[in-house]
Amino acid sequence: MIGIFDSGVGGMTVARAIETLCPGFPLIYLGDLARSPYGSKSPAMITEYSHRNTEFLLRQGAKLIVIACNSAASTASTFLRSHYAHTIVDVISPAVNQAAKVSTTGRIGVIGTRATINSGLYEQRLQDARPGCKVYSQACPLLVPLVEEGWLKRRETKMIVKHYLRPLRDKQIDTLILGCTHYPLLKNIISPRIGRKIHIIDSSVAVALHLQSLLEKDDKLRTELYDPQTPSRFFVSDIPSPVNALAAAIFGRTVLLEKTDV
Amino acid sequence: MIGIFDSGVGGMTVARAIETLCPGFPLIYLGDLARSPYGSKSPAMITEYSHRNTEFLLRQGAKLIVIACNSAASTASTFLRSHYAHTIVDVISPAVNQAAKVSTTGRIGVIGTRATINSGLYEQRLQDARPGCKVYSQACPLLVPLVEEGWLKRRETKMIVKHYLRPLRDKQIDTLILGCTHYPLLKNIISPRIGRKIHIIDSSVAVALHLQSLLEKDDKLRTELYDPQTPSRFFVSDIPSPVNALAAAIFGRTVLLEKTDV
Repeated sequence: MIGIFDSGVGGMTVARAIETLCPGFPLIYLGDLARSPYGSKSPAMITEYSHRNTEFLLRQGAKLIVIACNSAASTASTFLRSHYAHTIVDVISPAVNQAAKVSTTGRIGVIGTRATINSGLYEQRLQDARPGCKVYSQACPLLVPLVEEGWLKRRETKMIVKHYLRPLRDKQIDTLILGCTHYPLLKNIISPRIGRKIHIIDSSVAVALHLQSLLEKDDKLRTELYDPQTPSRFFVSDIPSPVNALAAAIFGRTVLLEKTDV
Repeated sequence: MIGIFDSGVGGMTVARAIETLCPGFPLIYLGDLARSPYGSKSPAMITEYSHRNTEFLLRQGAKLIVIACNSAASTASTFLRSHYAHTIVDVISPAVNQAAKVSTTGRIGVIGTRATINSGLYEQRLQDARPGCKVYSQACPLLVPLVEEGWLKRRETKMIVKHYLRPLRDKQIDTLILGCTHYPLLKNIISPRIGRKIHIIDSSVAVALHLQSLLEKDDKLRTELYDPQTPSRFFVSDIPSPVNALAAAIFGRTVLLEKTDV
């Protein structure tokens, strides 16, 4: 199975994209809602939680791990890769490669949680993928709570998005990476405020496309993971009241959330 | 020592009020930042965390427990009282008693996190304290993140506060309980929007006043807890980057935050 973890249900945007692009590959999802959100926690704490989540997914039979949470990917992916021999896919590199490719001017913006932006990993990988590019980053800590409240179209949300994007607008970027799995739900608000001509990179779709090409190229991995008879399973470490509705909104259908201890 | 716990640093408004009103009584504070915020977690999860926090404080020598987090108090105080013989003070009853006393019309509003409002405990205790009163509750889930971002005077915050308070304004309440330790930091925004004549009850101050009168009345407890030589200590289960500044802003002076595992 393909193991996927996130701090909550935001990573379901990734799970959904993988389900669409890689049919027949069952998923095992873990949303660590008992400790959510990660974006405001320290790097040490995020690494410890990511370690536990990975252990859980491997125990459940995952053969490949997708870090669907940008905060976890930017903080803990180096540790996880050094600690496990399994293939570990994170949400960052696919988005970085796509941005490096589509940008004409090499002026690229990144928005994310405080943990993601403070890690500097997007910047570092963008420099590797396209040396000399100019990267402008902006932490947007209020966007996750606004999405989790379902305030996707409210005036206050538009104002807050505008406030966060202003510094990036001034830098005349031509590409913007949505470095948080919650942000695609705000794409219709973000796009007109950053400028409609700006390329917007959705890290959820980018990682699913990357995984699809990985499975096409790697016969061993494909054989090991392909199993159309086994259904996907979705675990969460807590089930607060509004989460089923949010999961259904993100996933586009009702999903059975199973409670587990991590 | 007086043990105090909260999901984060918001409960420091309570610690500060106790320090001011009860000098010579050392505090031991625990902010569970590794699992913060509690207000969006399930009742079962909040109860488990509150149990662990209490165990930690008792191990450190606390003889009395103050639940400084409204989400924990409203969800877990019944369990904690049934489980421990220690005196357990929660932020809810003192605010409820004060509101029941000052309200002329008996139309009382309560604002808090989703966990606090969903528990119905404020409503229940207000009915006990003043039978027949009318209680109007409103969950305000975005206010904690706004406070934690330091957005205390921004236009977006004012709009969001206005949005949350509108239903309570329509009910013509004459008293409003701030049922979350973060909200006193927004008092200057809340007061003109709910109406300047409305009594605003700050649960942090109410609980400190209650503790002060408890210590005056109970000789045994006072003798056991009074110890002017011992300094207060402040523990947190995680130290994310902006927390020292936020703690200093809330506490009014620099506090040494010690990292611990709970």
